[in-house]
Amino acid sequence: MSGASELARLSLNQRTTASWTLREAIDGCVAAGLSSIGVWREQLAEAGVENAVAWLAEAELRVSTLCRGGFFTASESAAIEAAHLENVRALDEAAAIGAKTLCLVPGGLPAGDRDLRGARRRAAEAIERLVPYAKQVGVPLGIEPMNPIYAADRGVVSTLGQALDMAEPYAADEVGIVLDTFHVWWDPDVEAQIARAGERIHSYQVCDWITPLPADTLLARGMMGDGHIDFATIGAWVRDAGYTGDIEVEIFNADIWAAPGDEVLATMSARYLELIQPYA
Amino acid sequence: MSGASELARLSLNQRTTASWTLREAIDGCVAAGLSSIGVWREQLAEAGVENAVAWLAEAELRVSTLCRGGFFTASESAAIEAAHLENVRALDEAAAIGAKTLCLVPGGLPAGDRDLRGARRRAAEAIERLVPYAKQVGVPLGIEPMNPIYAADRGVVSTLGQALDMAEPYAADEVGIVLDTFHVWWDPDVEAQIARAGERIHSYQVCDWITPLPADTLLARGMMGDGHIDFATIGAWVRDAGYTGDIEVEIFNADIWAAPGDEVLATMSARYLELIQPYA
Repeated sequence: MSGASELARLSLNQRTTASWTLREAIDGCVAAGLSSIGVWREQLAEAGVENAVAWLAEAELRVSTLCRGGFFTASESAAIEAAHLENVRALDEAAAIGAKTLCLVPGGLPAGDRDLRGARRRAAEAIERLVPYAKQVGVPLGIEPMNPIYAADRGVVSTLGQALDMAEPYAADEVGIVLDTFHVWWDPDVEAQIARAGERIHSYQVCDWITPLPADTLLARGMMGDGHIDFATIGAWVRDAGYTGDIEVEIFNADIWAAPGDEVLATMSARYLELIQPYA
Repeated sequence: MSGASELARLSLNQRTTASWTLREAIDGCVAAGLSSIGVWREQLAEAGVENAVAWLAEAELRVSTLCRGGFFTASESAAIEAAHLENVRALDEAAAIGAKTLCLVPGGLPAGDRDLRGARRRAAEAIERLVPYAKQVGVPLGIEPMNPIYAADRGVVSTLGQALDMAEPYAADEVGIVLDTFHVWWDPDVEAQIARAGERIHSYQVCDWITPLPADTLLARGMMGDGHIDFATIGAWVRDAGYTGDIEVEIFNADIWAAPGDEVLATMSARYLELIQPYA
């Protein structure tokens, strides 16, 4: 049987049930026996932070991540400033709801800009500028390296090693990484880099790499077990790196979004118990 | 003006004009003032090797690559044996037409197999087995690292560094790499790895990374200048690594395939002169 204790570390990232409001997602988590949720800023704004704080407390849910900060690769000063202020607001929200980390998606190349190294440098500079405020409000930053499929238009930080290079100038509880299997599974160096990450792993997210890729590559993620990723092996590396936190299921997939949320939670809980939890 | 000398290193990879037979591609190269071609085995088989040898000699075209060998990640012995024999045949063809390298696309995970490290190990073993015959017929092997977008279903070798790790047990003129901008442009380590590659660069192929990615990700490549890749920077790294060979344009793209071949060659020659040749 799958008692609540076996699901103790499973977290629903709201993006997996994209049609649900925050209120519905909280209720869905409680009904499914989960004790953690990864919150998205869009749904948080709809609900209002004050309501969200009350609902989360009443439901006794941990907040494994707030998604997302970042998108700070702009090259013009007004856009750089706007991105910084948006991240400050995200940190305020993360602090209010007690998020374990603010997930940072770096952003892509500005339109017409082909200077990938420049964009990466600006992401590092934006993090440097954000760290003092993150420390002040007590929210760890989590840099999310993204699959190279998104290097041009979403995330210029492409490997776990690169994310760790950006995190290591800071204390581990100030800046770490968000490890998503979809983004890192292919990396020949990922075992060593997970070991290196250690206590900088601020979030562990799981979803599968499916083929053929759906037409919209943003929605190219699959339920664990439906694709090619060896969750046992990667999960053991994450465990051996010392990670004991929540494990978020974050799936961008049109078919999953079209399914009733309760069914999605039932499937993801079953797959978690089969493929993830035994190695966690 | 764009004299023939400025196009001296430009090579048409047949896949860019996929609707052309080998005969048509040879004629197209001659008409466009090119002196090199990357040949595909499918079209070579249609033409017959003996005809091809005569046509290529008459047209005075170099053969920058034969595409493709590889696809040797199978895990069952009969399939492993079949892949080896297919690669032996490819080497015979490459020797006959005087190809500068046999391009090796490693292949993906076998159906239902999630052991990526195992597939990579088998690719290395297949290369080890192939090297003696490649030496015997005098054809250098070129391992092509592939964008991680293809790690599951086409190419388990995902970075230039990983390809060089596989090549370095052998002499540089026995085993090297095929460097395609589409596959490596995102890699944070690519500058260092191109320098490391040096004389192991057996082929340099160019095409662009375009967004949004087309629905069929196999056809997600664009004409140079239509996407996000900084060809000047990567081209200078390749030049500084000592590469003086042909530069192949290899574009899998449904729109380009639908266009008349002569127009495609005119566009690619113009883009080459604008974006590639000045830095080569």
